[in-house]
Amino acid sequence: MRRIRITLAYDGTAYHGWQVQPGLATIQGCLEEAVAGIEGRPVSVDSSGRTDAGVHAEAQVAAFHLDNRIPVENLLRALNQVLPRDIRVLDAREAAPDFHPRFQAAAKTYEYRIQRTPICPPFDRLYVYHFPYPLDEERFVRCARLFEGSHDFTCFAAADEKDALGASKVRTVWSSTVRREGSRLLFRVRGSGFLKHMVRNMTGVLVECGKGNLDEAAVRERLARPGAFLPGPAAPARGLFLLGVEYPTDPPSSPAPL
Amino acid sequence: MRRIRITLAYDGTAYHGWQVQPGLATIQGCLEEAVAGIEGRPVSVDSSGRTDAGVHAEAQVAAFHLDNRIPVENLLRALNQVLPRDIRVLDAREAAPDFHPRFQAAAKTYEYRIQRTPICPPFDRLYVYHFPYPLDEERFVRCARLFEGSHDFTCFAAADEKDALGASKVRTVWSSTVRREGSRLLFRVRGSGFLKHMVRNMTGVLVECGKGNLDEAAVRERLARPGAFLPGPAAPARGLFLLGVEYPTDPPSSPAPL
Repeated sequence: MRRIRITLAYDGTAYHGWQVQPGLATIQGCLEEAVAGIEGRPVSVDSSGRTDAGVHAEAQVAAFHLDNRIPVENLLRALNQVLPRDIRVLDAREAAPDFHPRFQAAAKTYEYRIQRTPICPPFDRLYVYHFPYPLDEERFVRCARLFEGSHDFTCFAAADEKDALGASKVRTVWSSTVRREGSRLLFRVRGSGFLKHMVRNMTGVLVECGKGNLDEAAVRERLARPGAFLPGPAAPARGLFLLGVEYPTDPPSSPAPL
Repeated sequence: MRRIRITLAYDGTAYHGWQVQPGLATIQGCLEEAVAGIEGRPVSVDSSGRTDAGVHAEAQVAAFHLDNRIPVENLLRALNQVLPRDIRVLDAREAAPDFHPRFQAAAKTYEYRIQRTPICPPFDRLYVYHFPYPLDEERFVRCARLFEGSHDFTCFAAADEKDALGASKVRTVWSSTVRREGSRLLFRVRGSGFLKHMVRNMTGVLVECGKGNLDEAAVRERLARPGAFLPGPAAPARGLFLLGVEYPTDPPSSPAPL
């Protein structure tokens, strides 16, 4: 049996996130339906991780088993033909039989996009967090660097994730940087893994820093005292993009556009 | 009574075009409802021209009468608060009592966007015509220049516009150019006025030229022999943007981002 690895982009606006939920449109649900149509039986599709409702991906990685002997180029075309236009398969290839996009991921990169113009262009409304209010962007940039390193990110995890006993909330963030691109503030973070809502909560805390409600000491405290603070506030899902996933076996800088 | 002029951007995807139609969502309908909410009585909103269902605008110009003495800055904010997020008022100002955005328009600029990558990025799907097939782009560029000048554009008008007796179909196109921007082919046309479906039909004919089905002589013939050819094929609405409208009384290069 083959193991197929795909890279896909999606606009999360219309979906209740990655994970299959009965009766709701999800990315995983659409993919499993599309692959099942080719395979002729139900197929389960794994990914590098769930994305929340409304979160987008420029290069999510997923994998599934396949008996069908269709060449990967044709598989890519066939999937894009049946998938809705807000989900696109960018790449399809043969993978090792034991390839798992979540357990073998070495790094993931997310970007959070904040629109700073007084009026949000209608064409960007689903892909940015429109924040036209005063913001100390220098402080935002400075505080973002504090996330770098290995920390217990309990204070940045979704409330329902905090209750999972035993699972470590320590993650390593290799880079956490902010740049201005035109009228947008782009917060990009690359790390070993991310807890549920982690990037949205990090962004929300940075916005509070920029507004003057929190400072560098407050961010440091949230990293040093896991569980001492309620997470968030979470920035809205629509500004968040999964940019790419890296695997140890991949050649450098491939396949995700990092 | 005041005359207010507004510049607005909209994502046409969810609308049945500019013009009010009973029971259907239209740009004009949304605006008239928003202005009526401020004025406390029905208000009719004029524009520089109708746009088709699915066509977008970066800077449409509209105008309406108002008794309410709300300052224009507050009016702009109030309108954006009640309008859906896919319609944004970019500018609001006092205009001459007889200002009419259609009858006084001196020039309009449209842009048609064609996506040339094999796979259409999901985030662009509503804002481009995805044409991944072979296309002689040099011929496309060359043929676009043939539209420049004053011509009878009957062969590029919507079929239902051809029957309007007496109205001249002569329009002047000052510039009609194409450029490649990354993976997109951008056809930009600036002229004295445009017939219904004219830019979409021009684009469709240029695509036929690029595909090798039509040549420069065929384009010239369509301009020289009004009514001798069926219009089109029309390129899809979603690739078309109204970029701006110019008025003789405006200072140069204002207010539209041309």
